Amino acid sequence: MYTNETKIRVRYAETDKMSFVYYGVYAQYYEVGRVELLRSLGISYKSLEENGFELPVVDFHIRYKKPAFYDDELTIKTTILELPSTKITFYYECFNSIGVLLNTGSVILVFVNSKTKKPCSPPKALLEKLNSQN
Amino acid sequence: MYTNETKIRVRYAETDKMSFVYYGVYAQYYEVGRVELLRSLGISYKSLEENGFELPVVDFHIRYKKPAFYDDELTIKTTILELPSTKITFYYECFNSIGVLLNTGSVILVFVNSKTKKPCSPPKALLEKLNSQN
Amino acid sequence: MYTNETKIRVRYAETDKMSFVYYGVYAQYYEVGRVELLRSLGISYKSLEENGFELPVVDFHIRYKKPAFYDDELTIKTTILELPSTKITFYYECFNSIGVLLNTGSVILVFVNSKTKKPCSPPKALLEKLNSQN
Amino acid sequence: MYTNETKIRVRYAETDKMSFVYYGVYAQYYEVGRVELLRSLGISYKSLEENGFELPVVDFHIRYKKPAFYDDELTIKTTILELPSTKITFYYECFNSIGVLLNTGSVILVFVNSKTKKPCSPPKALLEKLNSQN
Repeated sequence: MYTNETKIRVRYAETDKMSFVYYGVYAQYYEVGRVELLRSLGISYKSLEENGFELPVVDFHIRYKKPAFYDDELTIKTTILELPSTKITFYYECFNSIGVLLNTGSVILVFVNSKTKKPCSPPKALLEKLNSQN
Repeated sequence: MYTNETKIRVRYAETDKMSFVYYGVYAQYYEVGRVELLRSLGISYKSLEENGFELPVVDFHIRYKKPAFYDDELTIKTTILELPSTKITFYYECFNSIGVLLNTGSVILVFVNSKTKKPCSPPKALLEKLNSQN
Repeated sequence: MYTNETKIRVRYAETDKMSFVYYGVYAQYYEVGRVELLRSLGISYKSLEENGFELPVVDFHIRYKKPAFYDDELTIKTTILELPSTKITFYYECFNSIGVLLNTGSVILVFVNSKTKKPCSPPKALLEKLNSQN
Repeated sequence: MYTNETKIRVRYAETDKMSFVYYGVYAQYYEVGRVELLRSLGISYKSLEENGFELPVVDFHIRYKKPAFYDDELTIKTTILELPSTKITFYYECFNSIGVLLNTGSVILVFVNSKTKKPCSPPKALLEKLNSQN
């Protein structure tokens, strides 16, 4: 298990006429969460792609408890619970600046070989980094 | 049960560097799907808000099978399976122009009284329209 | 000179906490405007790219007179005033459903050969179509 | 004259199928730039709104020289050159992480009294802060 926290400031563009962060914007926040988790392990998502991996999302589920508002500084807590196979699941909790849990969710991505376009094993470096955390 | 189909053309802005429609964009497509379903019942989402209702999303789940690409004309098929209580669930299927199922999902919204900010019953007009479909 | 009009319905996602369409969203509306202008000439922007052209934007200017609101059905009026050279300029007017002019603008794109990444002449088909309009 | 720099990491969501940051996304980056400039002066944009001001954008102009790419850490350099009247102009330069100038632009906003919806003078605190910089 490995957890990382990253902070995101809500932009005006991300609010809607209810004054809430639009429900679809969290897909971007969760993207930032998993990219920063990987960076904290020394793995750049950009270089994964440059090394022949694509990681399309196959499943996204989010439960909204409370809204986020303009200029809130949110904490995205991203967790890997299981070692990845051809798939990797990220679990999420999103908190506002006073620690209130706003939403929880999960995103499943599949490792795809960018040449063959077939599912493939995750990069060794990722497995080694995750194994070395335990 | 009530179903509506609406078409959406993929914008360049909605693609990402994988050339796929970004996974978070479907939240917008699904929004359009449910708004057009309501419009086909003679109910304007905008006037719901003007009449004192807010409908925040409390749950969003989507499973991606195939990507959509730039300029694809997608069909969003939106279905209501159960009469709404304080919550309403929309079920989704998204097809490309040659009929391939790209993703399926669901969105749950809660009816909130915009003054009291408490959950409330759905508008009578909506219940009557849905009842009259059966 | 060639003009095309296309209609766009404002999405909830595109509004902000002022209840206006966010000022950056018009870049997408203008994109739709020029793509539909080209389509009305029998030219698919997608196939331009498939035929070796890239069209990055080099200049975008917009003057906002009145806001657009949720669910408004906007008309994007897109005009080509001059035959393109290595650059093409689209002029825009955006109206709401009762004919009020909301904003005006222009976007300049450059034709780039996607292999050499150098500016190039526009596709002959485009020049012929535009010439045949006069 | 007053200048502030803020850094923004490019999200995957913000790229398009050309692998560039979509041209409309810079409206958001520029928004972050001016909000952080104000914050550096001790002024919260959020509290401006809470104190009865609205600041709709009336003019946005951007010239693109080079593209930004996924995961780039951009520097948004935002400058106020003139004391605001009922309008305020922000000037922008956007650089990538190796100091290459990617685009330049300007955004003009108007101070509006949120009750009367009429243009109004800027907040005194803002004028005082800007005057005290010289």
